[in-house]
Amino acid sequence: MEYPRDEERLSRVRSRMADEDVDALVCSAPDNVVYLGNYWTMKGWEVLVFPREGEPTLIAVEPQAENVARNAWVDDVRYFAGYDPGDPRPPHVRALDLALEVLAERGLDRRVGAELSGGTQGADRMVGEPTVPWKDRYDRLEAATGELADATPLLVRARMRKTPQEIERLRRTNRLAGLAVDHVRERISADQREPDVGGMYEAFVHSEGIGFEGTVEMARAFTLAWSGPGISTFTATGNRPIQPDQPTLLEIWVCADGYWNDLTKNACPGPLTPAYERLLDDLLGIMDEVTRDHVHPGAPLGEVDRLIRARITEAGHTEPSHFVCHGVGARAHEPPWAHQAVDATMEEGMVLAIEPGCYWDGGGGLRLEDNFLVTADGCERLCPAPDDFRR
Amino acid sequence: MEYPRDEERLSRVRSRMADEDVDALVCSAPDNVVYLGNYWTMKGWEVLVFPREGEPTLIAVEPQAENVARNAWVDDVRYFAGYDPGDPRPPHVRALDLALEVLAERGLDRRVGAELSGGTQGADRMVGEPTVPWKDRYDRLEAATGELADATPLLVRARMRKTPQEIERLRRTNRLAGLAVDHVRERISADQREPDVGGMYEAFVHSEGIGFEGTVEMARAFTLAWSGPGISTFTATGNRPIQPDQPTLLEIWVCADGYWNDLTKNACPGPLTPAYERLLDDLLGIMDEVTRDHVHPGAPLGEVDRLIRARITEAGHTEPSHFVCHGVGARAHEPPWAHQAVDATMEEGMVLAIEPGCYWDGGGGLRLEDNFLVTADGCERLCPAPDDFRR
Repeated sequence: MEYPRDEERLSRVRSRMADEDVDALVCSAPDNVVYLGNYWTMKGWEVLVFPREGEPTLIAVEPQAENVARNAWVDDVRYFAGYDPGDPRPPHVRALDLALEVLAERGLDRRVGAELSGGTQGADRMVGEPTVPWKDRYDRLEAATGELADATPLLVRARMRKTPQEIERLRRTNRLAGLAVDHVRERISADQREPDVGGMYEAFVHSEGIGFEGTVEMARAFTLAWSGPGISTFTATGNRPIQPDQPTLLEIWVCADGYWNDLTKNACPGPLTPAYERLLDDLLGIMDEVTRDHVHPGAPLGEVDRLIRARITEAGHTEPSHFVCHGVGARAHEPPWAHQAVDATMEEGMVLAIEPGCYWDGGGGLRLEDNFLVTADGCERLCPAPDDFRR
Repeated sequence: MEYPRDEERLSRVRSRMADEDVDALVCSAPDNVVYLGNYWTMKGWEVLVFPREGEPTLIAVEPQAENVARNAWVDDVRYFAGYDPGDPRPPHVRALDLALEVLAERGLDRRVGAELSGGTQGADRMVGEPTVPWKDRYDRLEAATGELADATPLLVRARMRKTPQEIERLRRTNRLAGLAVDHVRERISADQREPDVGGMYEAFVHSEGIGFEGTVEMARAFTLAWSGPGISTFTATGNRPIQPDQPTLLEIWVCADGYWNDLTKNACPGPLTPAYERLLDDLLGIMDEVTRDHVHPGAPLGEVDRLIRARITEAGHTEPSHFVCHGVGARAHEPPWAHQAVDATMEEGMVLAIEPGCYWDGGGGLRLEDNFLVTADGCERLCPAPDDFRR
């Protein structure tokens, strides 16, 4: 995770801060702390004070000092203890104390941007128990600042177009994820169950991802595995046997040093049933058409949504109950969201997850999903593992 | 996850709602939705409206209908779509619309409790990208209610003492976690690296946990693995080789159907070095003394914190930079927090993680951690895998 300071992204953010007359950002969503400070938090307690002028300050938990020194794009770091014998309040509250002190000391408290909206955040490295910005936190921020502005739209705009360094990091995440797909495709068999396959994928990424390409400090995968009739949406890994002649679908998020992907890759131990052969061909055709003709700078984002749904319906299938195109970067799902009711266009440097899928009543179906970098004249697929999983 | 409705916990919550004059709770933290509704959300979008009188209403994403019907302790469910062709707003915003409609329709909007504080929340089943209550959400709740009260203290009080059903579920989580410890202890070897061991643990829980004891629908483990000189605190899994004669420490959280534990278990392929033999004996002695004499109803919580630190120092070691005793339940860390500066006492039915640890300057050290149920006259260890890991 020892990446040089990405001046392109930082100056892009500073220029938007000037447009919106914000003196400083106070960020604690793990993905924004990665984006602005190249620091992926363990527990979500860290706060980054990012001024429009001058150096940022990171408020970090003491035992992380070595990590901070190695990775973070900050020279000014203030540490808080994980445990304070005289102060029983939780560490994240003491972290906010320090952040508010920094604002006051440096005269940055006139108009401050904080994450007031957003919906989700990228997980911290420990993932099971996210630190979240409850109302009491907003109340303290409001009391301590002249004016509190929403930093999310500004950060969203900056984050939508990836810098060369971000593209390099997303390529690496996708290479790792692709190797894990190969690993599972070689080992899947009909004597396994859905959770065996999910666990096999996640263990490979944990094991091979740490130290990957001599660079990655921390990698994790999160999967959902469904086989044949288990395939559906918004559902946890089930407990079915792996079907010998139907796809096992893996919904996959891999995160390497704070940069995520969002994939759906399938595997099957033997030849597919005729119904699945047809469905796979239909979805491969739709994926090809969309990424060949409709993903390039200036293309309407809503058209991808509309077109994928139309083509799925035209082929006699049911359209999916989920979004079929969205951004990916320091989070597995982030703007832009392609939606037929929204007017927006693609820009060079966006990275989009595109995911046509179809689910049958009563169970079964298929989804394909990969991540695509919008280039000067089209797009480039980022994961080396192919969508066509027939042997 | 097909548990009978736990009337004991629900009536306990309703009685506290009466004390605080709250007509309804509006909860979306995944752990509170599990606690009140026995529903572990996939994506964190679900909202539970829990009135003091009458039946609760769950706002759930449509493709989860089968899961909701099977598990949730609600008869009234209102569904929202994962994708709405006419409404590009994110699903969780549309879920909140429905929750506010329910409050208004049922006349429950006079004084409403919502999670206004808390610090962290239990992860959803997908875990990588938690849905969090940004300020825009609080603004909408405030605008839609006569008065908005903080439901967290009320829920914290109710959750601190576990009901018999909760204890049964926590036992199950700990049995699963213990089997995974055995699995790793049998297989650890000096030709592995730290992430191999972390991945091995997580894959076992994913694979064996789903369907565990014929009951568990969804299980996940989150680990950090550090070997010998890699042992420290608040640090991600590193990339060191497994040490043949020093502990490999696993920080472990296992979640089965929304009920978590928090363990630290160690493994070593061969005999320990003399320094580690001594440190292990010291920590085992401290764990024994504390759990034998100082964990029972009426015992001061702060004394456990003070005593563990004192004993570690008396033995010539450095006291740890983390909390050493806290609650565990629908989250890996939850109140009560044992802190020497806080006056509070143990109650029967509390489940406490107790974790004496010591870390050496420059790397290395050891921590032991298990979960203990406070019984009528003492306490009971919940994880079957012993702290003493010598072969």
